[in-house]
Amino acid sequence: MKRIAVLGHHAISSGDFSINDLAGGAGRMDILCRCVSSSLFLSHGMRRDVEVYLVLLGPPRPPVTLRFSGGRLRSLNPDERSAGSLIKKALAIPRGDEFRESTPGVAVRRGGLAGLLAEHPFSVLDEAGVDLRKAADLPENVLLSDHLNFTEEEAELVSGCRSFSVGPLSLHANCAISLFLNEHDRRSAGWT
Amino acid sequence: MKRIAVLGHHAISSGDFSINDLAGGAGRMDILCRCVSSSLFLSHGMRRDVEVYLVLLGPPRPPVTLRFSGGRLRSLNPDERSAGSLIKKALAIPRGDEFRESTPGVAVRRGGLAGLLAEHPFSVLDEAGVDLRKAADLPENVLLSDHLNFTEEEAELVSGCRSFSVGPLSLHANCAISLFLNEHDRRSAGWT
Repeated sequence: MKRIAVLGHHAISSGDFSINDLAGGAGRMDILCRCVSSSLFLSHGMRRDVEVYLVLLGPPRPPVTLRFSGGRLRSLNPDERSAGSLIKKALAIPRGDEFRESTPGVAVRRGGLAGLLAEHPFSVLDEAGVDLRKAADLPENVLLSDHLNFTEEEAELVSGCRSFSVGPLSLHANCAISLFLNEHDRRSAGWT
Repeated sequence: MKRIAVLGHHAISSGDFSINDLAGGAGRMDILCRCVSSSLFLSHGMRRDVEVYLVLLGPPRPPVTLRFSGGRLRSLNPDERSAGSLIKKALAIPRGDEFRESTPGVAVRRGGLAGLLAEHPFSVLDEAGVDLRKAADLPENVLLSDHLNFTEEEAELVSGCRSFSVGPLSLHANCAISLFLNEHDRRSAGWT
């Protein structure tokens, strides 16, 4: 199982947004939607061994964590609106401290980064990290930020995590996810 | 200059589509929009040395070729709707055999793959090709297909092109583009 977590610093934490305005009123939810797509889709199929966690930190009641489980997902298409629609549905159900499923393969709970880090060992994908291609021990779980840097509080929470870089330039999170998964694909297939 | 061309087999060749239905009524235009975004955007900036060509092969009057020039673009955001909006504007102006600009950095003309191949040497990104990481001579210009394979006619047109693979699994075109550009980024920066 590989886990990919993305922080959405302005992504709104209620279902009160329009699928037609993911980049605006929904607080750059478009970034998170592209991350879901790049994490889970193959050309003709889905990565069943990947879980995506979206940490929504925008108003009105953050933090909220969504989980997309590749092994159980239905009704997801690769376009931004499709992921946005499932996010909207997940944010419409009551949420507690445990994950509760809103649609097949999509679940929601209260809480954010601290809870995730307590459950799984995450590495950070960051341009200042070690070259991922040179990692003897490839991370299974990675954390990325949206278009904004980690806050001081977040940086403190991840200060003990390993850090890896996918390349010399700073990329959008969904592009970095493609590079992370490609390195796994290559090693699994014996491409050296 | 790097050139990235993507064939949209069902992508409609008039501006008569809704930005709210890129994946449906517009003939999987969402795929092409994600390709534009992955080709041109860095985390905080644009790849000024990249041109993206979208070959629209859907009704009513295909083929049409759009060109997004990273060096001249304005008003493009990374979300699908933003690229879709510029595509719609480009398809609203009269078009001839030469590129004509619709908005800064976006131009349109009649014609498709044969014309592109006559102008620039393209390589094909295809899972059956040579491992891109092992290419002594990295291609500058690459051609990809959308969710559909090349037609017989297209396969004939590209039969003389070099072919490269980005990894062992078949990926969405925008993910393959991220891998192609990363290989260039790494070599340019001296990451071996």
